[in-house]
Amino acid sequence: MNTNSWSSLIERMLAGNVRALSRLVSRVENREPGWMEAMKQIYPLSGKARLIGITGSPGAGKSTLANGIARELVAGGFKVGIIAVDPSSPFSGGSLLGDRLRMKDLWNLDGVFIRSMATRGALGGLNQSARDVAKILDAFGKDFVLIETVGVGQDEVEVVRAADLVLVVCVPGQGDGVQALKAGIMEIADIFVVNKADRPGAEEVCLDIESMLDLDQSSDKPKPPVLRTTAHTGEGLPELVRTLLDLCSSPAKGRDWRKMRIREELIGLLGKELIGLIREEWEKDGVLEKAVRQIEKREKDPYSLVEERLSLWLNRDRGRIPRS
Amino acid sequence: MNTNSWSSLIERMLAGNVRALSRLVSRVENREPGWMEAMKQIYPLSGKARLIGITGSPGAGKSTLANGIARELVAGGFKVGIIAVDPSSPFSGGSLLGDRLRMKDLWNLDGVFIRSMATRGALGGLNQSARDVAKILDAFGKDFVLIETVGVGQDEVEVVRAADLVLVVCVPGQGDGVQALKAGIMEIADIFVVNKADRPGAEEVCLDIESMLDLDQSSDKPKPPVLRTTAHTGEGLPELVRTLLDLCSSPAKGRDWRKMRIREELIGLLGKELIGLIREEWEKDGVLEKAVRQIEKREKDPYSLVEERLSLWLNRDRGRIPRS
Repeated sequence: MNTNSWSSLIERMLAGNVRALSRLVSRVENREPGWMEAMKQIYPLSGKARLIGITGSPGAGKSTLANGIARELVAGGFKVGIIAVDPSSPFSGGSLLGDRLRMKDLWNLDGVFIRSMATRGALGGLNQSARDVAKILDAFGKDFVLIETVGVGQDEVEVVRAADLVLVVCVPGQGDGVQALKAGIMEIADIFVVNKADRPGAEEVCLDIESMLDLDQSSDKPKPPVLRTTAHTGEGLPELVRTLLDLCSSPAKGRDWRKMRIREELIGLLGKELIGLIREEWEKDGVLEKAVRQIEKREKDPYSLVEERLSLWLNRDRGRIPRS
Repeated sequence: MNTNSWSSLIERMLAGNVRALSRLVSRVENREPGWMEAMKQIYPLSGKARLIGITGSPGAGKSTLANGIARELVAGGFKVGIIAVDPSSPFSGGSLLGDRLRMKDLWNLDGVFIRSMATRGALGGLNQSARDVAKILDAFGKDFVLIETVGVGQDEVEVVRAADLVLVVCVPGQGDGVQALKAGIMEIADIFVVNKADRPGAEEVCLDIESMLDLDQSSDKPKPPVLRTTAHTGEGLPELVRTLLDLCSSPAKGRDWRKMRIREELIGLLGKELIGLIREEWEKDGVLEKAVRQIEKREKDPYSLVEERLSLWLNRDRGRIPRS
């Protein structure tokens, strides 16, 4: 039996084999042939795990916090996985000098499975890749999947938007830190965490957040709690995890939100697949290269070329133009 | 004559009317009907401006630097536009408390046109929108378009990757700042700028960058210069702009790079348009909603649904299945 076949990998993964899990994740991320069939098999076995998004600016201590939360959850009898999509995270290798080679998976002492994802080069798109990996970890038996990501980029924000619960992490002494987070981040926070709370200025950050929350009249969702932690000593972590479990058992995000999430995933997935196919088709017979040359010489503009291509596809689709 | 028609806007924009320019940019960004026709008209008039990408972590002083560079260039007789896609930039309103309303355009004292773009909600995608706006500013007559963006997110990096010349901005005292930048940023830098060089630690940051550059054997492009500035006093700006002009007149990025950029733009543009059309088609007659319900009840999985949809489209395309 081929131990590297998809079905063998899935079988061993479901039996608890971490190496099989790791390989499965890589192959799905790399969109190796058969990945969709594999995800079809895995999907029905997922749906139990809670996704917790952890976001904030670089240097906010998100990795240490994720580790701490994982430890608390494990102590409470839960199984936990971590996905790190943060370029500045030590998990994802961003802080290693000359990181040509990255450690993709780590297992820490508590048996927490940690998967790092590069922010660029994810073939299915960062967002979809993170969702796929979360589903595999879910099927593997994890109760919680923590997704750690910086809250600055568009894609990164999308990743945590898909989580069941979002923690936004701030720290004292980052001047524009809280401010920088604001655009698009305030709205998605379910819990605010002021980390490194032993540093001077923690009180001000809390007040800052509270006053921003008070100003925000637009939302009808409950005001997110603001909690303090010092992740590297563990201070505040039990309270944070208690709040997190409370919120998970009475989800603030209802049925509409779940539907929205499914809708976005469907369209994202279809779009990515379609672009791959389109690119392939366009690259055939040098058609794309010809277009590039025409634009380079300014004989044509990209907008006209795209429109031509679209109308070709759509007319074909409608059967108006017979296929040549 | 309808002064709001596309042709009138384009005509007035080309005559130097800044309000028309501003409105045109908004309408293209919002993908209002006719935007593609408008861009087709504008495209042949573009191609002269140099795109300068300015990237770095939040708090690195990118906006002040962009302003300073613009001032220097204007003093040298050039026309300059700035596009700010940085959520932490004061231009894009990220740092204003309660920024529900954002100032979209600003004209500073030097007549520099500054356009801010939200990092989320750009209908054509952040990357494409920035390129469109750059082309309009180009056609308007700008010699240089500075694109300011944080260098952390995936999309944000893509934006500056498309620039003719990329400045990566670092500052002393941001601990993991230089490190955080590394993933994916080192490779795209044409010039490193150590800003706030009057602060302690500037020397270390320069050495840090130099040693990372020395370690990087992978690239065959010339080693990017490392320059020091104190943007708020203007210190170092003349040297920076001189280097920038030098590099622009003897571009390190050759023909292959230009082709790659055109290719990426074509595929991106086509993909975005296609996804819009697909979404529309899928939403018709409640087909998408039905799919969402099926997934919610776990009767189906998203992967199978996307595959079904794709094979429907592609088979249609190949004329195998007659259109119902």
